[in-house]
Amino acid sequence: MKATIITIGDEILIGQIVDTNSVSIAKHLNAAGIVVREKLSIGDDRAQIVEAVERALSASEVTVVTGGLGPTKDDITKKTLAEMFRSEMRCNQRVSDHVERMLAERGIEFNELNRSQAMVPACCTVLFNAHGTAPGMWFERDGHVVVSLPGVPFEMEHLMEDEVMPRLKAHFALRQIVHRTMITAGLPESMLAKRIEAWENALPPYLKLAYLPNPGAVRLRLSAYEVEGESVAREIDRQFEALRKIIPHNIIGFETATMQELVHKILTERGLTLATAESCTGGVIASRFTAMPGASAYFRCGVVSYSNESKVNLLGVNPADIARYGAVSEQVARQMAEGARRTAGADYGVATTGIAGPAGGSAEKPVGTVWIAVSSPERTVVLLKQCGTDRGQIIDRASAFAISLLRDCLNGK
Amino acid sequence: MKATIITIGDEILIGQIVDTNSVSIAKHLNAAGIVVREKLSIGDDRAQIVEAVERALSASEVTVVTGGLGPTKDDITKKTLAEMFRSEMRCNQRVSDHVERMLAERGIEFNELNRSQAMVPACCTVLFNAHGTAPGMWFERDGHVVVSLPGVPFEMEHLMEDEVMPRLKAHFALRQIVHRTMITAGLPESMLAKRIEAWENALPPYLKLAYLPNPGAVRLRLSAYEVEGESVAREIDRQFEALRKIIPHNIIGFETATMQELVHKILTERGLTLATAESCTGGVIASRFTAMPGASAYFRCGVVSYSNESKVNLLGVNPADIARYGAVSEQVARQMAEGARRTAGADYGVATTGIAGPAGGSAEKPVGTVWIAVSSPERTVVLLKQCGTDRGQIIDRASAFAISLLRDCLNGK
Repeated sequence: MKATIITIGDEILIGQIVDTNSVSIAKHLNAAGIVVREKLSIGDDRAQIVEAVERALSASEVTVVTGGLGPTKDDITKKTLAEMFRSEMRCNQRVSDHVERMLAERGIEFNELNRSQAMVPACCTVLFNAHGTAPGMWFERDGHVVVSLPGVPFEMEHLMEDEVMPRLKAHFALRQIVHRTMITAGLPESMLAKRIEAWENALPPYLKLAYLPNPGAVRLRLSAYEVEGESVAREIDRQFEALRKIIPHNIIGFETATMQELVHKILTERGLTLATAESCTGGVIASRFTAMPGASAYFRCGVVSYSNESKVNLLGVNPADIARYGAVSEQVARQMAEGARRTAGADYGVATTGIAGPAGGSAEKPVGTVWIAVSSPERTVVLLKQCGTDRGQIIDRASAFAISLLRDCLNGK
Repeated sequence: MKATIITIGDEILIGQIVDTNSVSIAKHLNAAGIVVREKLSIGDDRAQIVEAVERALSASEVTVVTGGLGPTKDDITKKTLAEMFRSEMRCNQRVSDHVERMLAERGIEFNELNRSQAMVPACCTVLFNAHGTAPGMWFERDGHVVVSLPGVPFEMEHLMEDEVMPRLKAHFALRQIVHRTMITAGLPESMLAKRIEAWENALPPYLKLAYLPNPGAVRLRLSAYEVEGESVAREIDRQFEALRKIIPHNIIGFETATMQELVHKILTERGLTLATAESCTGGVIASRFTAMPGASAYFRCGVVSYSNESKVNLLGVNPADIARYGAVSEQVARQMAEGARRTAGADYGVATTGIAGPAGGSAEKPVGTVWIAVSSPERTVVLLKQCGTDRGQIIDRASAFAISLLRDCLNGK
C-alpha cells in the first residue's frame, strides 16, 4: 500500500516555514503499514495542485494533502479539489454550528469569511475538526483515496489520529512496516561501518540498514516494509542484540534516546540530585532536564550566572579568581560547579563558562572556548572544549558536552 | 527562472527527521531571484531518483539534490547520477588529500569507505566541501543544471553559499523575488482579514498577500516574483506603512521578529537590566534571552528554582507562604520576581511558577496552571494563566506569556 503526501503553501517553497506536518503524517502512515513513496510541496496554485493530486492519485492508493484551507483569499485548495472532483459546494450544518460556537467562545465575530469554512464539496465525506474552523475532507476515486487536511499542525494531528487513520484501516487491508533505530555514540560513521561490516553483510535481505549521522552520534536503523510485523520485530531485536556484543560501549539506546534521558534515568534510579550553574549556555542545560516529566525528583536548582556578581553572590566564586583568570577559566568553571552543588545541597553540580560570541573573543580565548565542569561528592572534573563559531551551535554543543561529561562522572569514568 | 529541490533519504519518508535542508536551499534560491516550483522528497531508490531528477530537469532550469552521498551502502545518489549522465567514476586527488588530512586530524582511520568519497563522475564539476568528506557535484544538460549536495546541514549550507550560488548567478541571467512579512498580534486571522479588507483589495496585482497564522500571531506576507526588485521593495514598504495606520497597535515587527527581540531592544536601548526566576519554565525564559547576541549587556542572572529550598535560599521567598499558599501561588510568584530583582540587583525581575505536568495537578490547580510575575522599580504585576495540557506546550506558552507581560510592563501598560 503506497501513499503520497502533498503539502500546499507558498510559505514552504520560499523557505519561510519548516514543514513538520509531513513528518507527522508519514509517522502515522508508516505505523499503519502504508509506505510513503513521495513527499511533495507545491504552491497555492490551481494548476500545480491539480497536476500533483492527479499524479499522486494514479501512483498511490492514498494521498494526504495539507494546507490551503484557511478563510482568506490566498487559500484555494478546497475550491480546486471541488473542481477536480466536479462537485458543487454545499453548506455543512454541523460545521457551521461548530464554527459559530467556537468563535463565540473566543469572542471573535462570525463574519462571511468564517461562514465560508462550512462550505464543502458535496461529493466528499466531511472529517469533523473539533479543534479548528476548517473541516477535513475525504474523497474517493476508483478505490483510491484523497484526504485534505488543514495546515495548522495541532488540528491536522487530531484529524489524522481521530478521523483519517481509523478510516484508512477500515478501507484497506494493510500489512506492516517495522522500523527500529539504535543510537550509537563515540564512533564516526566510516569506522562504525567497518567495525560492523560482517554483521551488516549477514543481515537477512528483507532488512534494510540505514546510517544516520548526527553530531556526536550515529543512528542505525533497520527497516522492513510490508511484512508480518511480529516475527520481523523479533528478528530485528535479535540482530540488535548481536550488534550490542560487537560495540557494547557505544550504544546510548533506541529510537529517540538522548544523553539527558540516560542521565535522567541514572539520577532517578539512584536517588541522586542535580544543580546547574550556566554562563554561556544560558539556561539550556536546565531546560533540557526540566523538559522531562519527573525532573522535579532530582533537579534542585539552576543558576544562569551571566554577570560576575551573580557568580560571586549566588555561587560563591572567588572574585579574585575572576579578576586573575577571567570569568572563562578552569578555576571559575570549577568553583561554579562546586558552588552549584553547595548552594543547592545537591549531589552533582554541572557548570559551563565560555564565549558564545559573536563578540567577546580574543586570540587567547577565541569565540567557542568553553570550560565545562562537573562536581560530584568525590571530586570535580573540568574540561576545555572548542565548541565552534556560531552562537547557537556553541550553546548547543557546550550543553551536550556538559551532559555527556555528567554521564561519564555518574558512571565513574 | 524555476527550480526544483529534491531531498533523498528513507529517513525523510518515514518521518524520522525533519527536512530543514530544503528550507535553507529555498531561501538561498529565492534571495537570488530563482522561483522554487516544487520540493520533492524520495527514498534511497535508484528508479525513483532517476525519475525525479529527469522530471525536474525538464520542468525547471535548476535542480538541487541533497542526501545519499555518505560512504555507506545505503547511499546511492552519486552512483545513480553517474549512470544517469552516462559518466565513468574517477578519483579526484584534491578531495582524496582533503579527506585523508581531515580524518587524520580527528584520529579516524582512512579506510576504503572514506577513500570512495573521492570518486566522482568524470562529467561533473566538483564542488569542494571544506567541512566534510563528501564533495558536491555540478552537472549540466542542455543549459539546465543539476547540483548534488551532501545531506549534512552544515556542509550543505556552506556549499550552497560558497559554491552553488555564485555559480548559478554566473550561469543564468536572474531577475528578482521580493518577500516581506509583517508580524501582527492580538487579532485572529478572520478579524484581521475583515479589518484590512479594503487595503487588501487595493493592492497592486503583482503583489501577492498571504496570511500565516501562528499561535498568538498572524504573519502577513507580501510577495512579488521575478520583478525589478528595488521599486517593488519600495512599493511593499509603502503598503505596509499604510497598513500600520489601520492596525497601529497590532504590529510586532517584520520578518522573524519575536517578542523577546522587542524586549531585548527596549532593555538595551534604555540601559535597563533583567533577572529571571523560573520554576515550571525551567530555564527557557533565560535561554530565549541569552540566545541573542548582546544579552550580556542586560541579562544579570537567572535562577531555575525547582526546589522549595532554592526558592527560599536563592530568592528569599518566605517559607511560611510556600507552606500556606503552595509553591504555585500568586504570593510565591510575586516573591520570586521581587527576589530575582533584589538578588541580581536588576531593574526588572520576571518569574514563573506552575504545574507543567504530567503529574502534580489537582482539582484546584490543574496541570497547566501557571502564575507569572514581573517586578519593576515601580510595582509587581502578577497574572494567572492556563497554559494547556501538554508539558512542552505549557513550558512554551508560559515562557511566551511571561515575556509578553514583561514587554507590557516596560511599556508602562
